[in-house]
Amino acid sequence: MTSTLDAPLYTTAARHLVCRGCGAQFPLAPQHACFECFGPLEVGYDPAALRLVTRAQIEAGPANIWRYAGLLPVGQDPATRVSLNPGLTPLVRAAALGAELGFTAPLWVKDDSANPTHSFKDRVVSVALTAAKGFGFTRFACASTGNLANSVAAHSARAGVPSMVFIPADLEPGKILTTAVYDGDVVAIDGSYDDVNRLCSELTETDEFEHTAFVNVNVRPFYAEGSKTLGYEVAEQLGWRIPAQVVIPMASGELLTKVDKAFSELVEVGLVEAPAGGWKVFGAQSAGCNPIATALHAGTDTITPVKPTGIAKSLNIGDPAAGPYALDTVRRTGGWMDYADDDEIRAAIRQLARTTGVFAETAGGVTVAVLGKLVRSGRLDPAAETVVFNTGEGLKTLDAVADLVGPTYRVKPSLRAAREAGVLG
Amino acid sequence: MTSTLDAPLYTTAARHLVCRGCGAQFPLAPQHACFECFGPLEVGYDPAALRLVTRAQIEAGPANIWRYAGLLPVGQDPATRVSLNPGLTPLVRAAALGAELGFTAPLWVKDDSANPTHSFKDRVVSVALTAAKGFGFTRFACASTGNLANSVAAHSARAGVPSMVFIPADLEPGKILTTAVYDGDVVAIDGSYDDVNRLCSELTETDEFEHTAFVNVNVRPFYAEGSKTLGYEVAEQLGWRIPAQVVIPMASGELLTKVDKAFSELVEVGLVEAPAGGWKVFGAQSAGCNPIATALHAGTDTITPVKPTGIAKSLNIGDPAAGPYALDTVRRTGGWMDYADDDEIRAAIRQLARTTGVFAETAGGVTVAVLGKLVRSGRLDPAAETVVFNTGEGLKTLDAVADLVGPTYRVKPSLRAAREAGVLG
Repeated sequence: MTSTLDAPLYTTAARHLVCRGCGAQFPLAPQHACFECFGPLEVGYDPAALRLVTRAQIEAGPANIWRYAGLLPVGQDPATRVSLNPGLTPLVRAAALGAELGFTAPLWVKDDSANPTHSFKDRVVSVALTAAKGFGFTRFACASTGNLANSVAAHSARAGVPSMVFIPADLEPGKILTTAVYDGDVVAIDGSYDDVNRLCSELTETDEFEHTAFVNVNVRPFYAEGSKTLGYEVAEQLGWRIPAQVVIPMASGELLTKVDKAFSELVEVGLVEAPAGGWKVFGAQSAGCNPIATALHAGTDTITPVKPTGIAKSLNIGDPAAGPYALDTVRRTGGWMDYADDDEIRAAIRQLARTTGVFAETAGGVTVAVLGKLVRSGRLDPAAETVVFNTGEGLKTLDAVADLVGPTYRVKPSLRAAREAGVLG
Repeated sequence: MTSTLDAPLYTTAARHLVCRGCGAQFPLAPQHACFECFGPLEVGYDPAALRLVTRAQIEAGPANIWRYAGLLPVGQDPATRVSLNPGLTPLVRAAALGAELGFTAPLWVKDDSANPTHSFKDRVVSVALTAAKGFGFTRFACASTGNLANSVAAHSARAGVPSMVFIPADLEPGKILTTAVYDGDVVAIDGSYDDVNRLCSELTETDEFEHTAFVNVNVRPFYAEGSKTLGYEVAEQLGWRIPAQVVIPMASGELLTKVDKAFSELVEVGLVEAPAGGWKVFGAQSAGCNPIATALHAGTDTITPVKPTGIAKSLNIGDPAAGPYALDTVRRTGGWMDYADDDEIRAAIRQLARTTGVFAETAGGVTVAVLGKLVRSGRLDPAAETVVFNTGEGLKTLDAVADLVGPTYRVKPSLRAAREAGVLG
């Protein structure tokens, strides 16, 4: 690691888009599918340029995702950023949770509810909208299961750019209000997320949406890169080390693949040493939407789309675009996938809150519930250091626990009434 | 500023408790009222010890309130902290909001909804519970209008210490659930916050609560010091400068006095230069609970308690303990106070969200509404740099905007339906 502290800050190491299917390369542009094979595109980098990034440079950077600007496709110049400056969220040592689950090695919760709009989506939106602004788009949009809509609407408000977000009409009220309050356009669709996503793909082809960036459609390769910052942070917060095991919720499956990509990049560019035993990546879905985990359990490469049900609405993508890559990652690293039903999700939300002080949304309940299952089934080693990802905020899905928790006592305001009710023991 | 980077980190400059009424001094202990005159106590420091704290030392500290440990009464040794590590929340440049309100100088929003439980209360709770643990208390408690209960319950869960929080039974459901989910005891009182507070004062005198720390009763002097970190952060984030004007919401009035105290301390210990024209402190209440502002407007020192009403429940303290000190602070600095009704609060929540991407709870709506009023009445100078404080999270008070915002369109999932509904313009 040399001392070129300044040089890479205002340039990107990204060089092209590359097809995950056939490997064809394309210029860095708002394009998400391969012209050759229609496969999905991702950002490709110049390895030599990435290797110029140093730990010292990162540690001297801002306390948010932009400390990793040297490893991202955009945002090297702070003036170009469209961002609420998410990231560097807490890595919480979850000793009590670990003890309950039988861990002998450290267990950590990466708590991304601490982001500005309280989900990991702020990371991907900051990168996608910074790219979109650079490409000259004048309106920001997305297809969302809720958290992404919150983030796009808030980012757009901060930036003073019009926005239009598309959501299933049956989302949690908290997520709809938290989007609409920013005063962008909100389009509620009578259908599933997969219906919403299909409509947005069609809209990107219309003249009326020519200047509209759909963060997870036409600038998706840039959007997806934002997820890598979760992996970078975990490694940095552990003292530039990669944990032996990570457990990650899956909707499209993209987050899981990008955390793995982040770890690989850190090793490749020399920022961390490859751990002796590698690392294992585990995926979590809900029982109401488990097409990726089901394919793994069936030992097939074919992901059969499902019609999602259940309370983990932020994960309800029945036809997961990155599912095959998530399968590859889990198989390659020796991990596993499992899923949890609604009661298990609710119980896990409460267990996480009680043991760590972190109040997760349903997606976090999914991940913690699956963590427990993986330990009990022997798939995940409780004697190996593990990081479990909470990607969202319990305040957005209050209904999940509304019937389960409440006041212990209700009394009149007098010492006598308190005593009679048993408040004094 | 000398180079003693290490020395003060594991000692406190706090030396005694001092009565804000008669000046009597007492040892640092869990005591909140003067034995001489029953006046409230606050922490007194050794000025020479405070002067050992340097900017470099602070800047090298953690990205949370503990970077200011040298200026706090407890928590110098990280191992002693009972904390979710709140603080260093964003200071957001609110250019569009400033433009709407007629500002020619910079306007900033200090957004404390970014704290772990999404209100500024995490600051005071971290300091209070660290003190409480040091004093040997074995259970944590509070009287709360909601946010404080969230924070005490979450801190206690993280620390593995039992908790019992006391709240008015008519709080927002979001705040009750977000407390109860952590699995401590929640006591809902059929009465106002003032009733709750009175009961808690009585409980602290019982044998059964001998080992229970009520963060805002028997360890209140320590609790209150946590608020200073908001002032320190604003100054540091402005490049070690104190803004000309600050607008702060008032419940007990304590926060306002502590931000002012923080600015004064920074000048006294040599960490910032005194600004040429000093600084003006402005206070914001809701029309449903405005006893401090009413006293100011009437030109009296006597604060007449009120029975609170209105949607800004987190500010609904009808008999504000620090009201007289808030009056003093505002008069001494040349500021002013005003209040906003429920419709104005709702409009200001939306204005703040639309212009900055910050979704505030009702208390934030109060403060932004009052900011606008102060500019229009000529009390606050839009040509002077101003910081307005958002102390809480919109997700906790969704009902405030539920009838006002929602989807712009609701359509079936087809391009044709979208076109017919006007989504394409």
